[in-house]
Amino acid sequence: MDVDFLVGKFKDFFRASGKSKAVLGLSGGVDSALVLKLCSDAIGGQNVHAYYLPYFENAVDAKQTQDWAKQLGASYAVLSISKPVDALCETSGKWDDVSRGNFMARVRMSLLYFHARQHGAVVVGTGNKSELKVGYFTKYGDGGVDVLPIGNLYKTDVWQMARDVGVPSYFIDKAPSAGLWEGQTDEGELGMTYTELDEILQLLEERPNAAVQKFGDEKVTLVLERMALGEHKSKMPPVL
Amino acid sequence: MDVDFLVGKFKDFFRASGKSKAVLGLSGGVDSALVLKLCSDAIGGQNVHAYYLPYFENAVDAKQTQDWAKQLGASYAVLSISKPVDALCETSGKWDDVSRGNFMARVRMSLLYFHARQHGAVVVGTGNKSELKVGYFTKYGDGGVDVLPIGNLYKTDVWQMARDVGVPSYFIDKAPSAGLWEGQTDEGELGMTYTELDEILQLLEERPNAAVQKFGDEKVTLVLERMALGEHKSKMPPVL
Repeated sequence: MDVDFLVGKFKDFFRASGKSKAVLGLSGGVDSALVLKLCSDAIGGQNVHAYYLPYFENAVDAKQTQDWAKQLGASYAVLSISKPVDALCETSGKWDDVSRGNFMARVRMSLLYFHARQHGAVVVGTGNKSELKVGYFTKYGDGGVDVLPIGNLYKTDVWQMARDVGVPSYFIDKAPSAGLWEGQTDEGELGMTYTELDEILQLLEERPNAAVQKFGDEKVTLVLERMALGEHKSKMPPVL
Repeated sequence: MDVDFLVGKFKDFFRASGKSKAVLGLSGGVDSALVLKLCSDAIGGQNVHAYYLPYFENAVDAKQTQDWAKQLGASYAVLSISKPVDALCETSGKWDDVSRGNFMARVRMSLLYFHARQHGAVVVGTGNKSELKVGYFTKYGDGGVDVLPIGNLYKTDVWQMARDVGVPSYFIDKAPSAGLWEGQTDEGELGMTYTELDEILQLLEERPNAAVQKFGDEKVTLVLERMALGEHKSKMPPVL
């Protein structure tokens, strides 16, 4: 997709929403770094409020996100989510990494909407097409946003567009991670690289047999299962 | 709507979802009391996990919800949300009643999804058609659910159906309140009674002029504004 076309659609979205400010969570990864750039191009960096919301403190991510926000003229703040997340875990009695990760995503959503209300802003999501298709996000957590500017870009397209628009290479070269526990990587959890996932997803749209021939039954089945299990996350709850 | 027809659709939903257990928040109001009954009829009370999630302790609501859950054979637990909500408020610096109310709704959603994952259950919503139409709910809070069994019933229909299926009258006769601050009532906040709102909403679908004639320009405009402002809450976030 062409960058100018995408920024134009983003401007249309803001016009239709009646709002001209945005709130956005930066993770230290390439998706949110690209969205910050697109958002700044659409409404001006001075109208973008960026937040870094760590559970595990990471000085490198903190520095990189702050530098990038500053360069684009966006406001920037760090909000530690550890107290509300720990309070949710304690209220629940016992938890595991995945449950705590879901709490992290939902606390971030809650805080971003708090600040959106303060600023009269929309909450801008950072989900890409690869994640959305296989449901690789927390329902009503990082999935709980007002608009998905890169929801039509596969992860491999995100990397390309990030390079094209000058997103710093330290975001692009970093191993993708949802940061839900230490050492977690997306590709480890997905059981394949994004390059593989994206090609499988594209082939499944047109030539499913070619997907199986190239990547084998096991990987394609894994993707199809994830798509089926995650489908409800991309639909409004049914009204009976 | 006919109760048996609705319970049949609820059964269809569970069949399609591949799950046979439900998690549900009880507020002490009529909507969740009715949904608990419908849910028990659809999958059996023993498969329903009901939670009372107070911020402000209310002994009457606690007793009534527990009695009703017990009567239907559903499991019941009280989870105080005060610690995670207060932690969110403290992380945000300053807050008002509405912001805290939104945190309350989102903390409840987060905890219900935690327990849904523990039980392999779906999260059942309690939103009715009147609330959904005017966006009178917290996006990704009480709006963050897997299914809306009474989403096609106006509040006045909810009262009627609750009577028909034997929901205890103490739920039906209570002044509707989201419980977001002490003394809050829905009808106070909406600026009209549910009887008025429901008739305006129904007239707007077919004979908008009749709505203005009967209820006056001011009330109808208020409803139309709420519908327009809340519309985004009932749609998936647009993908650009």
